[in-house]
Amino acid sequence: MNQPGLFITFEGGEGAGKSTVLQAVAEQLQQKGHCVDTTREPGGVALAEKIRYYLLDDQTIEVEARTEALLFAAARRQHLIERILPGLKDGKIVLCDRFVDSSIAYQGAARGIGVEEVRQINDFAIQGRMPDITLLFDLPVEVGQARIHGNARETNRLDDEKVDFHLTVRKAYLELASQNNERYRIINAEAPIRSVIEEVTQVIEDFIVNKNRD
Amino acid sequence: MNQPGLFITFEGGEGAGKSTVLQAVAEQLQQKGHCVDTTREPGGVALAEKIRYYLLDDQTIEVEARTEALLFAAARRQHLIERILPGLKDGKIVLCDRFVDSSIAYQGAARGIGVEEVRQINDFAIQGRMPDITLLFDLPVEVGQARIHGNARETNRLDDEKVDFHLTVRKAYLELASQNNERYRIINAEAPIRSVIEEVTQVIEDFIVNKNRD
Repeated sequence: MNQPGLFITFEGGEGAGKSTVLQAVAEQLQQKGHCVDTTREPGGVALAEKIRYYLLDDQTIEVEARTEALLFAAARRQHLIERILPGLKDGKIVLCDRFVDSSIAYQGAARGIGVEEVRQINDFAIQGRMPDITLLFDLPVEVGQARIHGNARETNRLDDEKVDFHLTVRKAYLELASQNNERYRIINAEAPIRSVIEEVTQVIEDFIVNKNRD
Repeated sequence: MNQPGLFITFEGGEGAGKSTVLQAVAEQLQQKGHCVDTTREPGGVALAEKIRYYLLDDQTIEVEARTEALLFAAARRQHLIERILPGLKDGKIVLCDRFVDSSIAYQGAARGIGVEEVRQINDFAIQGRMPDITLLFDLPVEVGQARIHGNARETNRLDDEKVDFHLTVRKAYLELASQNNERYRIINAEAPIRSVIEEVTQVIEDFIVNKNRD
């Protein structure tokens, strides 16, 4: 018997357009009759949104790197328990903007804590509930940075990090994709947004067709 | 060369009087010319006090057990980095109301997450910086509960748990003490408070004398 629901995470560096694509894909899937929940990390439920504030918006507190990783894991746990698992149980397609792989790429690799150590605290948080599909929105760092700094999108603390940081993030994601190629789909995020939306919708629909065939 | 400073944690169940004793002992040590910092967990620094609010005071959010463990670890990390380590570096005696062992006894044992799993996320948080001395304020659960419910001390979420929970906490602490007998001193918290204060002050002074002799 198949597990009900479908858990899909959107991953990638800044400026890859994943949040915009996520909303558009959700609308397309809903129009086709699917029941969809869209959410994001850190956040998605009340406690996790409060944690998000200290992680991204509060400029008065300098959050140390390991504290940051533990707060991301705490927010993730509460989000999983209160929203993702109940949504999947109800048979929904849950589209989540960032999940464990963000912590591995950002805190583990780019902040230098170590991929294995960050994976371990996240194993504690999610107890094996990995996504069914992870979409990696991949594009060159300079293209992503130009998109962010060339438009009015609100910047946050992570946007201010140096280019090296973002290069490490991209490399870490590509390694995760090659180590988990059953779960990962690499999306060329440099393509026009309309074609990215179509591609992602198609990937999800193909997955559903194959899943129902099994 | 000795490490500077002295890191002492006060542990035990509710109603053991450890917070009262901690303040009195700090005053005695200061009168004898020692430089002392008193602090508590969760809390002790701005970010950790904010996390404390969601852990203990906010009645609108039900914090799931693993989320709780991760939040305690996050608060602990920030507290260690911002306050405990700088205090020790300055040569202070840091008296801390609760630390890692509280998480092991409460989240690991009593909440049933598992002692080893909780130890692991705390290893991530403290990177081996265990206390020099841990004072376990031990007393029968019914005595501690009677003290809490018989006086006006503000109760919090943990005070409302059932007696079984507190029995498990006590057992877990006594196991930690027997596994770590070099670090642990068991204090009979049923004794009159004046004699407990004297005993604890003496334990700390003896430790300092022995340390300086080495």
